[in-house]
Amino acid sequence: MSSPLSSPRQPADTAAIAQLRDAVVADIGEAAILNNAADMAPYLKEWRDLYTGVTPFVLRPRSTEETATMVRHAARLGVAVVPQSGNTGLVGGQIPVEAGNEVLISTDRMNAIEEVDARGSTMTVQAGVILQEVQRAAEEAGRLFPLSLASEGSARIGGLISTNAGGTGVLAYGNMRDQVLGLEVVMPDGRIWNGLRALHKDNTGYDLKHLFIGAEGTLGIITRAVLKLAPLPHARDAAVVGVASPADALTLLGRISGRLGDALTAFELVPRFGLELVLKYGADTRNPFTEGMPDWMVLIEASTFAPDRPMRDILEAELMAAYEAGEISDAMISQSLAEAQDFWRLRELLSEVQSHEGGSIKHDVSVPIADVPAFLAEATEAVLKVVPGARPVAFGHLGDGNIHFNITQPEGADKAAYLARWDEMNAAVHAVVRRYKGSIAAEHGVGRLKRDLVPTVRDAVELDLMQRIKAAFDPDDLMNPGRLLPMPGK
Amino acid sequence: MSSPLSSPRQPADTAAIAQLRDAVVADIGEAAILNNAADMAPYLKEWRDLYTGVTPFVLRPRSTEETATMVRHAARLGVAVVPQSGNTGLVGGQIPVEAGNEVLISTDRMNAIEEVDARGSTMTVQAGVILQEVQRAAEEAGRLFPLSLASEGSARIGGLISTNAGGTGVLAYGNMRDQVLGLEVVMPDGRIWNGLRALHKDNTGYDLKHLFIGAEGTLGIITRAVLKLAPLPHARDAAVVGVASPADALTLLGRISGRLGDALTAFELVPRFGLELVLKYGADTRNPFTEGMPDWMVLIEASTFAPDRPMRDILEAELMAAYEAGEISDAMISQSLAEAQDFWRLRELLSEVQSHEGGSIKHDVSVPIADVPAFLAEATEAVLKVVPGARPVAFGHLGDGNIHFNITQPEGADKAAYLARWDEMNAAVHAVVRRYKGSIAAEHGVGRLKRDLVPTVRDAVELDLMQRIKAAFDPDDLMNPGRLLPMPGK
Repeated sequence: MSSPLSSPRQPADTAAIAQLRDAVVADIGEAAILNNAADMAPYLKEWRDLYTGVTPFVLRPRSTEETATMVRHAARLGVAVVPQSGNTGLVGGQIPVEAGNEVLISTDRMNAIEEVDARGSTMTVQAGVILQEVQRAAEEAGRLFPLSLASEGSARIGGLISTNAGGTGVLAYGNMRDQVLGLEVVMPDGRIWNGLRALHKDNTGYDLKHLFIGAEGTLGIITRAVLKLAPLPHARDAAVVGVASPADALTLLGRISGRLGDALTAFELVPRFGLELVLKYGADTRNPFTEGMPDWMVLIEASTFAPDRPMRDILEAELMAAYEAGEISDAMISQSLAEAQDFWRLRELLSEVQSHEGGSIKHDVSVPIADVPAFLAEATEAVLKVVPGARPVAFGHLGDGNIHFNITQPEGADKAAYLARWDEMNAAVHAVVRRYKGSIAAEHGVGRLKRDLVPTVRDAVELDLMQRIKAAFDPDDLMNPGRLLPMPGK
Repeated sequence: MSSPLSSPRQPADTAAIAQLRDAVVADIGEAAILNNAADMAPYLKEWRDLYTGVTPFVLRPRSTEETATMVRHAARLGVAVVPQSGNTGLVGGQIPVEAGNEVLISTDRMNAIEEVDARGSTMTVQAGVILQEVQRAAEEAGRLFPLSLASEGSARIGGLISTNAGGTGVLAYGNMRDQVLGLEVVMPDGRIWNGLRALHKDNTGYDLKHLFIGAEGTLGIITRAVLKLAPLPHARDAAVVGVASPADALTLLGRISGRLGDALTAFELVPRFGLELVLKYGADTRNPFTEGMPDWMVLIEASTFAPDRPMRDILEAELMAAYEAGEISDAMISQSLAEAQDFWRLRELLSEVQSHEGGSIKHDVSVPIADVPAFLAEATEAVLKVVPGARPVAFGHLGDGNIHFNITQPEGADKAAYLARWDEMNAAVHAVVRRYKGSIAAEHGVGRLKRDLVPTVRDAVELDLMQRIKAAFDPDDLMNPGRLLPMPGK
């Protein structure tokens, strides 16, 4: 057979789109459709301003069945659909193309928490539930939902699953993938796959769930999920530590994780320049270091599960030992919840403060943990060769090997001229990533932004296998087309 | 297109098999082939004696490239291959059919540990490495490889990954699936997929790795893997606890896991009758309970990561509190490593001692954790309706909701007559499993034994999706055919 992906799809015509509208009105009603510009605007723009989309209308199903009905009609009429969740994605996967021939389906009205099972440590939710609500419901049941990231106040579960979101809890708890026990998905032809199981062990055939997780909506629309909950810590203490280099940070990681085991629930790296930006532009921030500003800051979180065995004591003892061994230059453990939140704020503000210093060229990469120091040194050298004077803000999840290697423009440079070097800078950084067998799309995904980079890091066999899966599930290429997966021959 | 799976495959003819032999001899050499009966015998019989296979010869590659060469020739000649690892599987997936037209490929010569990266907490191994060797190498590097199961002295990594093995470490560390960072696989057409990455975060396209994990060799032969290592506990303490019922065991689980968090590394359930069998037939065993034999025994393991914060103290305090609350009838914490091993022995011998009491009809099921007590009550009632006097030995991983619901024949009954009721008993138990949305193949997989049961627990959409994946990767159905996946229309 010739792959259905090999011939460029014709855009759906105006008639087909009108028929889809009529079919949805007939089966579900007018209320499921938004089509005035003001109502649609929030769905068509993402917050980093890289993409602005056009869609004939936005469909807002209230249930799995309504989603299935919409998709079935779209498939029958040959209309492409773009699933959207909380619209917090950073790579354009959730924004319709400018051609205006993709219909956006938002799951934002499917926002019920259907069941919390504290005893079984599971929660069943609809795709449109916001992450913070999941965290809150878990905590009310005496459990922890450990996924945590900057956009948790607006990111929705369906999108978090579709992009296999990461964040600061990955070190101890894993990615979003690891929090999902079961899924329900509307397939590209409108059929419903019911994999909504609450099982910790199940080897009955291929694990379809993991195929949909991280597929960025290209294989179907996630409508419901069974999430796994974790024990709720009695306390969580934070510490900020000054170190001289990423290598010293890695030594500290080895030391602390050997003592705390799974009680080490975060280990984040922040460079001096990043910290300076946060202190300069971030409201309500202060430098926690008394001995001057270190070259690198590490943010550590230790969770205590047994109240009479506080992990902060161990953390304190280890940090003292590290100080005496000359491995760290300074360390502070939070004395209160408020202080812990202040420490976290220094980390969380890093993304937004960069914009105050002009253009920033971004990379979301990972390498094997032990290779992070070498990667940082070589990638820094590489970008400075491309743009002398550029200022790296390399921060992120050292414990996962995941670095947001963002490069702020040289002081006083022209922003547009700097951003015009985006591809060139990417190429320089990604060459180093490839040398360390790393990932160029570690936690933010591929979407439209990195689609054409995928063939630079995946060989022909892997591309072929991915395309076969796409063709097997979505032979007409109507489900979030053009995202994630490069076309054959590209 | 018509599915390539829909027409029954013709068996490879003798000429094709002879040509395969010649091609392997020419490209790799005679030493890669076993074909006398005595040499082949260990590969053709599995230890529970349910399957005895026939194969024209056994191929034993020494590398990924040799594996690829063999598979490429087999694919070209239309010869079906059966991958085999440690031959410890319980469902016949690794044994060639009696028709003798499937060539067995064993990975047992690919047994090198290629790299241990203590700092990055990873290990790169070939598929034929035995689990115990992986555990040992991790420990020598000051790390833990947490997968642990009865057959760890002979089970090999490739098979453990292909079947997504479980065991006693799942509660804290997850299944085999959760220990794998990267994979290398020889595809059914002989191409090599290189997904041998050591990354904790990578969202560059579909997660192919998870598709091969648990696919039981039907999508390709796993040749190498990058495994994830965990912090090595400073101590592991075991306790045996007497409880009146599975419901009380579940209450105890809630209590202990709330206090120990991830330091609770095993929580296993054993019924009185099972314990009696172990004490009767198991060498070097003794009843640990001083207050008489409880109706149910729980085996608990607590791991200590910080030496000055022994988890055994917390465990002891909690067990005391549970005793005072009347939730448990008796409890002993191991006073030495030897005693901990004695406690574990009571659990580990359970599988083999059952054979001394005649026939045993087995079920490897899981249900949501909170439903285990109700499941046990209803399933017991159901099997006693089918065979009055039958004696359930329901044991296993309560913390994962995974129960080995094995039913020993009535005392003095005829073994063959009892075993003839296998399907009937299965049907009775699986009906209860379905009621609780459980799994009929929780950790041992499907193989040949349960293949035709899959359509009783998976709907048409799910079967179709699985068959599409199989057809996309193995259109000629030559890679471990007839395992795992029912044929369309069946």
